[in-house]
Amino acid sequence: MKVDPLPSVSIFAQAVQRQGYAVSDLHTESAVQTNQRPVGIVGAGPAGLTLANLLHQADIPCVVLEKGTREYIETRPRAGVIEHRAVRMLDDHGLADRLLAEADRHGACEFRVNGEAHEVDYSSLYGGQTHYVYPQQEVVKDLVRHFLDAGGDLRFAVRDVRPHGIDTTEPALTWVDADGHEQRLDCSFIAGADGFHGVTRQSIPAGALQEYSHQHGIEWLSILAEAPPSTHKVIYALHPDGFAGHMLRSSTVSRYYLQVPVDDSVDNWPDERVWSELHKRLALRDSDWRLTQGRITEKRILDMRSHVVEPMNHGRLYLLGDAAHIITPVGAKGMNLALHDAEVLAAALIGYHRSGDDRGLREYSDVCLRRVWRAQEFSQWMVFMIHRSPEPFLSRLGEARLQHLIGSRSSAGYFAQNYVGP
Amino acid sequence: MKVDPLPSVSIFAQAVQRQGYAVSDLHTESAVQTNQRPVGIVGAGPAGLTLANLLHQADIPCVVLEKGTREYIETRPRAGVIEHRAVRMLDDHGLADRLLAEADRHGACEFRVNGEAHEVDYSSLYGGQTHYVYPQQEVVKDLVRHFLDAGGDLRFAVRDVRPHGIDTTEPALTWVDADGHEQRLDCSFIAGADGFHGVTRQSIPAGALQEYSHQHGIEWLSILAEAPPSTHKVIYALHPDGFAGHMLRSSTVSRYYLQVPVDDSVDNWPDERVWSELHKRLALRDSDWRLTQGRITEKRILDMRSHVVEPMNHGRLYLLGDAAHIITPVGAKGMNLALHDAEVLAAALIGYHRSGDDRGLREYSDVCLRRVWRAQEFSQWMVFMIHRSPEPFLSRLGEARLQHLIGSRSSAGYFAQNYVGP
Repeated sequence: MKVDPLPSVSIFAQAVQRQGYAVSDLHTESAVQTNQRPVGIVGAGPAGLTLANLLHQADIPCVVLEKGTREYIETRPRAGVIEHRAVRMLDDHGLADRLLAEADRHGACEFRVNGEAHEVDYSSLYGGQTHYVYPQQEVVKDLVRHFLDAGGDLRFAVRDVRPHGIDTTEPALTWVDADGHEQRLDCSFIAGADGFHGVTRQSIPAGALQEYSHQHGIEWLSILAEAPPSTHKVIYALHPDGFAGHMLRSSTVSRYYLQVPVDDSVDNWPDERVWSELHKRLALRDSDWRLTQGRITEKRILDMRSHVVEPMNHGRLYLLGDAAHIITPVGAKGMNLALHDAEVLAAALIGYHRSGDDRGLREYSDVCLRRVWRAQEFSQWMVFMIHRSPEPFLSRLGEARLQHLIGSRSSAGYFAQNYVGP
Repeated sequence: MKVDPLPSVSIFAQAVQRQGYAVSDLHTESAVQTNQRPVGIVGAGPAGLTLANLLHQADIPCVVLEKGTREYIETRPRAGVIEHRAVRMLDDHGLADRLLAEADRHGACEFRVNGEAHEVDYSSLYGGQTHYVYPQQEVVKDLVRHFLDAGGDLRFAVRDVRPHGIDTTEPALTWVDADGHEQRLDCSFIAGADGFHGVTRQSIPAGALQEYSHQHGIEWLSILAEAPPSTHKVIYALHPDGFAGHMLRSSTVSRYYLQVPVDDSVDNWPDERVWSELHKRLALRDSDWRLTQGRITEKRILDMRSHVVEPMNHGRLYLLGDAAHIITPVGAKGMNLALHDAEVLAAALIGYHRSGDDRGLREYSDVCLRRVWRAQEFSQWMVFMIHRSPEPFLSRLGEARLQHLIGSRSSAGYFAQNYVGP
């Protein structure tokens, strides 16, 4: 691994002076003393920002590096469903004020099959837990605000971020800042929360990680429109021509999904075709229900794929969220897994910094991966259920799975536990 | 479809004379009058024999044709697990006397993962329902005995069975009997219970059935041995080298399964290798448990495949059991589906013969197929869970599914309902 020439005065020396840490602490190796070097967090998504807030609240120094601008990350539409458990965690740390005030709570979803609607009240099947519908960029906005208001150190628009010495006790990050200056930060640990295409995972030596990948053989056209929701519940529609979904984002914006042939292109989907296909696949028999249209602001092809690396750490680099695992949007687990990783890593780092006990760090990967694999299994279970497969036998199994979910309490209970909890 | 020359005196004219039916009734077309022609049942497996017993008890004439000898069908080892529901049905018709006296009841199974045993008490999770462990050939033996004792007409060792006129109101069966004589039976209906490779489904015109097939990408070596069971519960073992199963048959005979590579051959599995692999994959850590060996009496490669035809009837031919659907052994549903088909068809035929109401016959296929697809979906869910896939990601999902089953009440409840009921 190539290490860039170091700037003569490290950014962390400046940060430490600002924060009152002794520069002489930087290069010792003992656990408790390394407390004084900051945790370098790469990526200001939900995982990186949650970790940053939790560490900062525990008086553990950290610096967040983000390649996007603040405006970019605060407006980029992504996921929009947060689990009860994640909201409670954010709220425990005072990070859910606006979310709790503004998010809609959802405890039921609707499956449409052969033009009939079947509601599954998963909340009542799982102890009253609900989802919170709140766009991911709003989560990011809140987390940025809380972190900066508390005096957190967050650098936007950085580039050429590189981790160094991750398998030593003296890792570091270098980057070029928004003004074009090379910077370096000596870290206690590095948190890689820079997404699937980020640099942190790629800095881990070849062969150190076991990578698991799967392409589910399905693609979605993902549509975002300035249209009020036509439903109070998420709709999953199975149609002979393929899946269609109507997701909720806000009172003025909705997300829709259409199953499209593998290797399809956005170019094949002019707006009229999108709406016509949504109307058709979401149609209800003998009903006045109609889909409300609006201006389409985003159309993207989503490849349904999954990816997991094991373990989720290497030396002093810990991976979080999409940097360690990606999952299909089905089941809405991606952001929730990222928030869980951040919570687990924050607790592990706090434990280590306070007492030198590295048990949380040693267990970090296993604890997160249990939840990751559970979510992957559930997401695949649901992918299988709601899509048409090119193999008719498998499509029929998917239909049988859905019929069972609609008609059986045991299956609905299984779905509820996995969908909204635990 | 070629129709054989008819014998001058039909077998049914003889049967009818024996049973006191008027020959003049044979060729009318009205529903109630066709009652007097017998139902021709092809195949004396659990489905055909159950149907025969139920019809005979209801005074509906029927003739069963079986290509095997009585000894052959009464000793051929096949499935061995009967669901509570099927036992209740047999018992309601006085067909479960010996089964209830001799079968073991099972309400728990064991999963072995990484050398640890995890019991799932599915009976207590599903209203106390249990499985009955009773070899299929014993079911067959009992059904043959009951049918013949009641004066039923069952022809063994027939060959060249052919259905005729299945899409007319005057279907017929021709065959060559054990003495080499050509025979013909004019039927009210034909029940095709002659298995996956049987002639009845093949007599349906091309294109009239929708066929669904799936190869699960897995093969088993199926082993039968004269060995007392080494367990009181069915064992499903997940091992890095693949699945191993220990099934129960009787106090002196046990069945075992080993996942083997696709296209493997029995020739690669001398007895010593079979036992060594079973010992290894079934091993328990820190335990005195040992597998008891015995003389191996059968070794077969089982292709894990599924097949379903829709609808399960054409004209006056109704398909039952393996003739209409095959399923993997995982979940032990095959014989239970066959018994269910027989129960549904018997009720439909009885209703039709008594009142001319053909609603049961019209609904036969849909009623059976709902249960068939439910079972196929569950079996595939379980196949996925207990096997190693060549794709590591999918193997990990299978492990996650099993970990959830072991650790979660909602998942165990889902398993229980599907495994032992409903």
